[in-house]
Amino acid sequence: MKIAILPGDGIGPEIMAEAVKVLQALGLRFEMETAPIGGAAYEAAGHPLPETTLRLAQQADAILFGAVGDWKYDKLERHLRPEQAILGLRKHLGLFANFRPAICHEQLVGASSLKPELVAGLDILIIRELTGDIYFGQPRGRRSAPDGAFAGAEEAFDTMRYTRPEIERIARVAFEAARKRGKKVTSVDKANVLETFQFWKDVVTEVHQDYPDVTLEHMYVDNAAMQLVKAPKNFDVLVTGNMFGDILSDEASMLTGSIGMLPSASLNDKGQGLYEPSHGSAPDIAGKGIANPLATILSAAMMLRFSLAQPAAAERIEAAVKQVLAQGLRTADIWSEGTTRVGTREMGDAVVKAL
Amino acid sequence: MKIAILPGDGIGPEIMAEAVKVLQALGLRFEMETAPIGGAAYEAAGHPLPETTLRLAQQADAILFGAVGDWKYDKLERHLRPEQAILGLRKHLGLFANFRPAICHEQLVGASSLKPELVAGLDILIIRELTGDIYFGQPRGRRSAPDGAFAGAEEAFDTMRYTRPEIERIARVAFEAARKRGKKVTSVDKANVLETFQFWKDVVTEVHQDYPDVTLEHMYVDNAAMQLVKAPKNFDVLVTGNMFGDILSDEASMLTGSIGMLPSASLNDKGQGLYEPSHGSAPDIAGKGIANPLATILSAAMMLRFSLAQPAAAERIEAAVKQVLAQGLRTADIWSEGTTRVGTREMGDAVVKAL
Ligand SMILES: CC(C)[C@H](C(=O)O)[C@@H](O)C(=O)O
Ligand SMILES: CC(C)[C@H](C(=O)O)[C@@H](O)C(=O)O
Repeated sequence: MKIAILPGDGIGPEIMAEAVKVLQALGLRFEMETAPIGGAAYEAAGHPLPETTLRLAQQADAILFGAVGDWKYDKLERHLRPEQAILGLRKHLGLFANFRPAICHEQLVGASSLKPELVAGLDILIIRELTGDIYFGQPRGRRSAPDGAFAGAEEAFDTMRYTRPEIERIARVAFEAARKRGKKVTSVDKANVLETFQFWKDVVTEVHQDYPDVTLEHMYVDNAAMQLVKAPKNFDVLVTGNMFGDILSDEASMLTGSIGMLPSASLNDKGQGLYEPSHGSAPDIAGKGIANPLATILSAAMMLRFSLAQPAAAERIEAAVKQVLAQGLRTADIWSEGTTRVGTREMGDAVVKAL
Repeated sequence: MKIAILPGDGIGPEIMAEAVKVLQALGLRFEMETAPIGGAAYEAAGHPLPETTLRLAQQADAILFGAVGDWKYDKLERHLRPEQAILGLRKHLGLFANFRPAICHEQLVGASSLKPELVAGLDILIIRELTGDIYFGQPRGRRSAPDGAFAGAEEAFDTMRYTRPEIERIARVAFEAARKRGKKVTSVDKANVLETFQFWKDVVTEVHQDYPDVTLEHMYVDNAAMQLVKAPKNFDVLVTGNMFGDILSDEASMLTGSIGMLPSASLNDKGQGLYEPSHGSAPDIAGKGIANPLATILSAAMMLRFSLAQPAAAERIEAAVKQVLAQGLRTADIWSEGTTRVGTREMGDAVVKAL
């Protein structure tokens, strides 16, 4: 079993070091190989996703990913910016199914912006399509406007698009996931305005016929953004496209108050997966030793379960994390009166000890 | 002075009746003419935006709009659905600048999903571009995928696009508005992925040179969806495109807990405007006499101020609304223990009395 370790930028290396420590402490036999990605790879090799890193990722059974991005690369040409690395990995490996759980950990209810009664026990699974939509649609670029009220003016444009098989496979992933949970899928679209999402809605409705035991509801994206704030517990599995999923999954994780705790998985149809924390590279706190490593550690647990067939090891990690929280240990992002503030490394050490 | 009154569907007629009553009670001289729109117009005339309604809207100095939409029209062809009426009005009248204030009324802090300290005193202005972007971009439709991993498969697609003059004018509107408020503009984009929004960011940055007294910050749309939840009071004026604005403005209004109180305005470059409540047609409670008419009444106030040059009358209405809230009167959506629950008509009557 081979794991590609891609720490990346900002707090990436710090949080990854703790996750690797936890993986090593399990006493299992797998190979871990580290490679640079994002800004770090640009510095080292002139490209955010060097050939060697891509090859490692393709050959590995699973990828553990830290985070990429830093303002200092904002002025680079688009194809050299750190974000291109994660977009490239998704596309090259066909990682079309992104799982973003938004869970409110019992002990962290107070860290949420929302009133406790709205988030206590929250457990939503957002499934975002990750290799299609306006993220990758061609054509795109700049040109002179071909028509419209400002024909001839300088213009930029992108193409939103989804094919039937792309919608079908992500819908199946959502229905299958819902079967193992609350048996309800909310498909989020903007069918009242977009051709792409009228088609999305039609195809999801068709696929639903194979899952009569699961309830399907349709919701417009603007309404979904509201309902997540108003009554997040009404959701079970939410499935949507790449662009809407980017926005709604971040909104939902922030609702929990503990985005620093939330793992994510991006899978392809071979079960290969990329696992990463839901939070970003946070360059403002990089190198300070205060970042929360738990989302990365929990991403490693997800990886053991979904790509490495080691569910028992996954459970051990999850139990260890629960235990350190119960001990009252907190990094700065989730700290509150009466708990003990610890740094990145201390948190990692505590998880290892709890194993 | 001529006002087009377009009640529309669902709770539209009920809430509009109260706003008209309030306008009449002002004792000012203006003509009001009512016309059907949305599903109501489809029933009456076979089209959601009949020629006569469009002409009335074009000739009027201002439009007071209720709401459109009902599930029962979901099966109609797209161009006959109620939503097309509002999209058509925006496009035909060139109503490119949508103002959506998200204000947390002092007496309604408790109605928010967010903790009181996060929303007390909240006063954000979201400015959404309303006549461009993927809402109107051509080409769009269905076809056989021309390329990509699923070339040949059935596909639906849309075009996102913005020209320089479209971005420039909405940026100016935002900077001008910020000058009269907190002097800060947050421009929301997705420049790390979309050509359209890299261009948006570049043009907004250029326009900013004419407004050195206003602070400009750029934020990715996924981050904006998070920051609205985490620390909404950090925003002053938020400006963004049509699609992102649709999502973020609804999220922001729901944060206040009193979307039933929030007016909105959509203006063109002649000062003509369409005024409507931020909430929708709520077909589930239509005809029950329980909808909150205050957002429509406050939209009428905005109309008096921005399109009819009657700022004193606008203030009278706003003061009257404050007074009925202070009296403890509440419709169901904002009701809480210790306040008096009233229906749509009673609320309208109370505002008239307070005038
Ligand atoms: C970095 C960026 C390209 C990326 C995205 O938009 O997908 C990020 O926001 C995410 O959600 O993983
Ligand atoms: C009804 C719909 C077309 C419309 C939009 O998406 O603009 C609505 O959501 C709005 O925000 O006014």
